[in-house]
Amino acid sequence: MRKLEGILPPVVTPFRADEVDLDAFRTNLGLWNRTGLAGYLVLGSNGEAVYLDDRERDQVLAAAREAIPADRILMAGTGRESTRDAVRATRRAAELGADCALVITPHYFKGQMTADRQEAHFRRVADDSPIPVLLYSVPQFTGVALSPETVARLAEHPNIVGLKDSSGNVGSLAETCRVVPEEFAVFVGNAGVAYPALCVGAVGAILAVANCAPEACVTLYEAFRRGDHQEALALQRRIARLARLVTVTHGIGGLKLALSMRGYKGGGVRSPLTMPTVEAAHEIAKELEEVLEGHVSETVS
Amino acid sequence: MRKLEGILPPVVTPFRADEVDLDAFRTNLGLWNRTGLAGYLVLGSNGEAVYLDDRERDQVLAAAREAIPADRILMAGTGRESTRDAVRATRRAAELGADCALVITPHYFKGQMTADRQEAHFRRVADDSPIPVLLYSVPQFTGVALSPETVARLAEHPNIVGLKDSSGNVGSLAETCRVVPEEFAVFVGNAGVAYPALCVGAVGAILAVANCAPEACVTLYEAFRRGDHQEALALQRRIARLARLVTVTHGIGGLKLALSMRGYKGGGVRSPLTMPTVEAAHEIAKELEEVLEGHVSETVS
Amino acid sequence: MRKLEGILPPVVTPFRADEVDLDAFRTNLGLWNRTGLAGYLVLGSNGEAVYLDDRERDQVLAAAREAIPADRILMAGTGRESTRDAVRATRRAAELGADCALVITPHYFKGQMTADRQEAHFRRVADDSPIPVLLYSVPQFTGVALSPETVARLAEHPNIVGLKDSSGNVGSLAETCRVVPEEFAVFVGNAGVAYPALCVGAVGAILAVANCAPEACVTLYEAFRRGDHQEALALQRRIARLARLVTVTHGIGGLKLALSMRGYKGGGVRSPLTMPTVEAAHEIAKELEEVLEGHVSETVS
Amino acid sequence: MRKLEGILPPVVTPFRADEVDLDAFRTNLGLWNRTGLAGYLVLGSNGEAVYLDDRERDQVLAAAREAIPADRILMAGTGRESTRDAVRATRRAAELGADCALVITPHYFKGQMTADRQEAHFRRVADDSPIPVLLYSVPQFTGVALSPETVARLAEHPNIVGLKDSSGNVGSLAETCRVVPEEFAVFVGNAGVAYPALCVGAVGAILAVANCAPEACVTLYEAFRRGDHQEALALQRRIARLARLVTVTHGIGGLKLALSMRGYKGGGVRSPLTMPTVEAAHEIAKELEEVLEGHVSETVS
Repeated sequence: MRKLEGILPPVVTPFRADEVDLDAFRTNLGLWNRTGLAGYLVLGSNGEAVYLDDRERDQVLAAAREAIPADRILMAGTGRESTRDAVRATRRAAELGADCALVITPHYFKGQMTADRQEAHFRRVADDSPIPVLLYSVPQFTGVALSPETVARLAEHPNIVGLKDSSGNVGSLAETCRVVPEEFAVFVGNAGVAYPALCVGAVGAILAVANCAPEACVTLYEAFRRGDHQEALALQRRIARLARLVTVTHGIGGLKLALSMRGYKGGGVRSPLTMPTVEAAHEIAKELEEVLEGHVSETVS
Repeated sequence: MRKLEGILPPVVTPFRADEVDLDAFRTNLGLWNRTGLAGYLVLGSNGEAVYLDDRERDQVLAAAREAIPADRILMAGTGRESTRDAVRATRRAAELGADCALVITPHYFKGQMTADRQEAHFRRVADDSPIPVLLYSVPQFTGVALSPETVARLAEHPNIVGLKDSSGNVGSLAETCRVVPEEFAVFVGNAGVAYPALCVGAVGAILAVANCAPEACVTLYEAFRRGDHQEALALQRRIARLARLVTVTHGIGGLKLALSMRGYKGGGVRSPLTMPTVEAAHEIAKELEEVLEGHVSETVS
Repeated sequence: MRKLEGILPPVVTPFRADEVDLDAFRTNLGLWNRTGLAGYLVLGSNGEAVYLDDRERDQVLAAAREAIPADRILMAGTGRESTRDAVRATRRAAELGADCALVITPHYFKGQMTADRQEAHFRRVADDSPIPVLLYSVPQFTGVALSPETVARLAEHPNIVGLKDSSGNVGSLAETCRVVPEEFAVFVGNAGVAYPALCVGAVGAILAVANCAPEACVTLYEAFRRGDHQEALALQRRIARLARLVTVTHGIGGLKLALSMRGYKGGGVRSPLTMPTVEAAHEIAKELEEVLEGHVSETVS
Repeated sequence: MRKLEGILPPVVTPFRADEVDLDAFRTNLGLWNRTGLAGYLVLGSNGEAVYLDDRERDQVLAAAREAIPADRILMAGTGRESTRDAVRATRRAAELGADCALVITPHYFKGQMTADRQEAHFRRVADDSPIPVLLYSVPQFTGVALSPETVARLAEHPNIVGLKDSSGNVGSLAETCRVVPEEFAVFVGNAGVAYPALCVGAVGAILAVANCAPEACVTLYEAFRRGDHQEALALQRRIARLARLVTVTHGIGGLKLALSMRGYKGGGVRSPLTMPTVEAAHEIAKELEEVLEGHVSETVS
């Protein structure tokens, strides 16, 4: 597998008439393949994986495998509430060609998700997985966080190779980077702190906004890698507001609209999500222009 | 359908060697049928529904339908993250003979679950459901609450007939009872406030502890109904600590152990949940004795 | 001292041109003395005690002592961040004639306020106080709660005689009532749950809304005491919305305006608080009318 | 006034026999004056200002003024709950020679502290203050945060010159830095994110740990200023654990003990705070050694 680092979008799953639109999905991957993205997270939160059934998940993953060249990372979201389901989904993703699996913290019974139970869950999944496993901590969706101590213990497992930390808590992410082995790959999952997360040790970023503004995200990452902190900060500031609009403020509906504005195939969302209002669309268009202006030579459309 | 009121346990799903043990499940229902329980919630949170696949859910529901007499309520948990999945699960439950459906708030994308989107979700499910629908608000698991205002608006829908409010927030439950029509059935889902919830207008209670101590819960309810507040309060105090042990403190593992202690078939839990330690077991046994002492004429075993 | 039970308003401190208006304060007490209130909390949260200096606090307390007859309770808010200041303020209140002291949890260094430190603080204050002490738990202002276990331990102190629980958490209040001695006086400090709190063992209520609607609050309490639960619930519902407007929604500015509307001397608030807008005033007037209609024979003005 | 930037400790107030020990305080300042600290925050949270009375505050500030040379910043904590008290305290600090004032968000009535009321409060204090004002946002103590939008509006006031952001929220701090004028001085107040905060635009840091490890903090800052990100990150990691021990974990008691271990005059804390246990002391000593080893040429003792 390619080294785990760089920028990955958690790719959206386009719908047409409420059904998965695989053609649109393939079109998007084809366009993204022309950018400097290191790879893709398929069936993540922004892929609306919680709204897909198992058949749809298989279709999406198979289509992704076909469309993604071997030199880019194909990471698949395979976490489930029960350990047995997480094991099954991870094995299935491996069969369908995923390079690695991203496993979210179980979270329905939040109060019961002690560090011990988290550890047992992830160890079991990693033991039974044919492909390397990354942990996924996203407390704004789950109400459950992975502590740096828990990550450090899990990082000792030979088949647990990284973490996506979407908490936005840079202090905790910094502490995690401090206590894990050098080769353990910490990705930040929050565009508002992408640059500072890289500063404290993240090796890459998995960002919703990288769906619709991959060039800006990749440029930020490359600026950081070559030590150009001034440019990296300038890009961080440039993407911050758009990133917020297509996540916290307007959610996946906002993100899909931004994709459509840029010539990708955004498609619709599944209910209970909704597409943005006209006012929201104007707001998104304005910020998108701001991000793109002068910084993206080859636009898509 | 029988009138929606009284005590219902959210029945546990026993496992043996990590597989659903339908015989054990039927045994439990047989025992419960000899008590004054008004009915049963099947495939609820305490039924570990999030750990079951669709085939298992069907089996459990079908077994429940067979074992539950027509004069007791069979309520089925049918909520899902997407509206389409919630609709499908609700229709399926109707086919399998459920009397009514309990639909949890969608919650993965918490920040997007505005009142408008909540309403649209529930209206659509209710529109398409052959059986009456109850709303389910359990913020400690979902991070999402239903406001009294939202419930009031949804209560106008002819096929939305009630609510299970497990928040433990008696002020909010009281306000909800104040603003909904007389015939809208508000159930409290929190044993620690069962009696005060009845005082402010709840018509019944859906309580984990009613799995292992149905008699005490029914006696509390009956005391309240005949206006014996002193007895109702005494029973409230009697069950409070046990209820806490088999929910917040030790979770479903604790509840299943308590069931086994009383002669029911508790069975094991699915990972990442675990069964209680020996110390916890002693604690549960002690509180169980406390609750039963002198108050339960016919014990099970 | 009179028995600790019944309805007490946490009396507001009227300001005129940003100075304490003692005449207005005395006028209010004179009017309240004609109602069935059991007593008064002076220098509480709603008294804007955090906005008063020591000289003003002395003046207010001295004026209260003069205006309040011996057969009504004069409870004084004397909590401070440091134990030494809390001790001093409590002694001073005793000198000025307070019957008992209400001591808030220290809370600035929230993370450090362990149960042990809470206990040491309250024990020291109670040891050094010439008058009985009540604990005050109001997590919505302090971010710190008193657990039932901590209250139970403190209730063993001979000079700690009660608690004001303003959390609104009826489950916790019920548990507290269960574990403290019979004679320990638990007051609820939240009008939205006044009636259910009485049901689970509270002996009275200290309610902001009792400033502007003392009759309705007293009638609720008396209905409960004589076992008329139907009437108590009806009154609970009647006051709930007004109570919310003059606390959570519009704060002390709303409460003072409601007082003025009823013929009391509300006066202004100190900055950063502000008085309600015209729209808010209409809303308050409407709810006030709702509460008063038909239920208050002798109005004030 | 010297330019607002660099490292400032929020200096502790030593107590002996529960009284302010001004000699110890002066001794500490004398020692700190030999380091590269840019200045001092006096009467801040870590100065236990909430446990001091007005006379003590005056003494501490006067002693600070005497001991601090003109070329170092003397920032005084002057926030209060009421606007009038905050104005008075700020004027008093100016009289006693403070260079600038740090004004905390009012917070007792959290729910009422809307952006409008926050703005009005700070504007009034700044209008009436003879010295420049900095805003202070510390939600872990206050439960109230200042949004980037509010800070941006207040930054337009000619006498509001900066912010101390102790939230630890690097995303919000980054956004704040993006929307305020170049000359507005944003300080981070959280050692766990000091380096990433500098990366996104903070001009300095006000850190509890700078009381007991000023050299490491100053070295981190200087490394960052000369563009040595590797060294800055190494130091960030070196101080992170000690910083946590002397704030979140063991509080000011832990900080004062660490000071005493290093040859400063830590003294005791005021109740309800307590000094650390022997185990905690060992833990602190170990981390202190870790921080100092090889990185501090001139130690104090």
